[in-house]
Amino acid sequence: MRVLGIDPGLRNMGWGVIEVDGSRLRHVANGVIHSETGELGVRLAALYRGLCAVIAAHSPDTAAVEQTFVNKDAVGTLKLGQARGIALLAPAEAGLSIGEYAPNAVKKTVVGVGHAAKEQVQHMVRVQLPGVQFEGPDAADALAIAICHSRHMQGRNVKVVA
Amino acid sequence: MRVLGIDPGLRNMGWGVIEVDGSRLRHVANGVIHSETGELGVRLAALYRGLCAVIAAHSPDTAAVEQTFVNKDAVGTLKLGQARGIALLAPAEAGLSIGEYAPNAVKKTVVGVGHAAKEQVQHMVRVQLPGVQFEGPDAADALAIAICHSRHMQGRNVKVVA
Repeated sequence: MRVLGIDPGLRNMGWGVIEVDGSRLRHVANGVIHSETGELGVRLAALYRGLCAVIAAHSPDTAAVEQTFVNKDAVGTLKLGQARGIALLAPAEAGLSIGEYAPNAVKKTVVGVGHAAKEQVQHMVRVQLPGVQFEGPDAADALAIAICHSRHMQGRNVKVVA
Repeated sequence: MRVLGIDPGLRNMGWGVIEVDGSRLRHVANGVIHSETGELGVRLAALYRGLCAVIAAHSPDTAAVEQTFVNKDAVGTLKLGQARGIALLAPAEAGLSIGEYAPNAVKKTVVGVGHAAKEQVQHMVRVQLPGVQFEGPDAADALAIAICHSRHMQGRNVKVVA
């Protein structure tokens, strides 16, 4: 089974695909879709097309999107929300089930503690996906989200039929 | 020239299409796309498909989306942001230019004052679009946004070529 993890962001949309075979994980691909300048609609369309291309290229069976941290910066939250809408739309349009996980849930599943540092998360992603090379920090986060989703599905004995 | 106005919301996405001929306006259609229950991805996909269907049915030349009011409710802002991402994506994917207007700018253009009541806005939309029947308050807001966009384009002498 293939799992797509997405770390939503308006400037940098991280993504990572892993293969899950029982409790064994394998890295498939990871990357970051950039959309840094231009009109908002055009930027969102670039993110959407990028994610659709990733889904077409790697045929995931299920997806997981990080639950954006809602901080006190309303403008930042609105921007993240817009990017997150796109991150959810692309897999939904492809008919994929979508898991949503808070950042602390991802850290707890991947590292064992909810307040792990970014370096600890990246270290544990490398341990679980031998040979992986991160295309950027957002891609590493996306792989952590994919690992979290695969572990939660195993825990729930959820079987995703391709 | 046809203008599509969108009032973004996760539960209720209002839309309205008007025809602009010089300074004369004519109502074409309005409605509300509902997406009240279910998984977030599926709800966003329903909104996206609904907006794509509106664009296919009415062939607007340009679009305008309300700039969501950023209040102190971060959870609400995040939800609105997700819906707003979809409201911007659909016209961008159709190749339309997109105007963005704050609620006060819409009121100022349509009513003449930035803090007009909802009833005043609806009254002035009725005056400017004789015979219009609103499919709901969000559809009325969307028509006001479309009127605002048409007036601003006239003011800027922007000519949109279909």
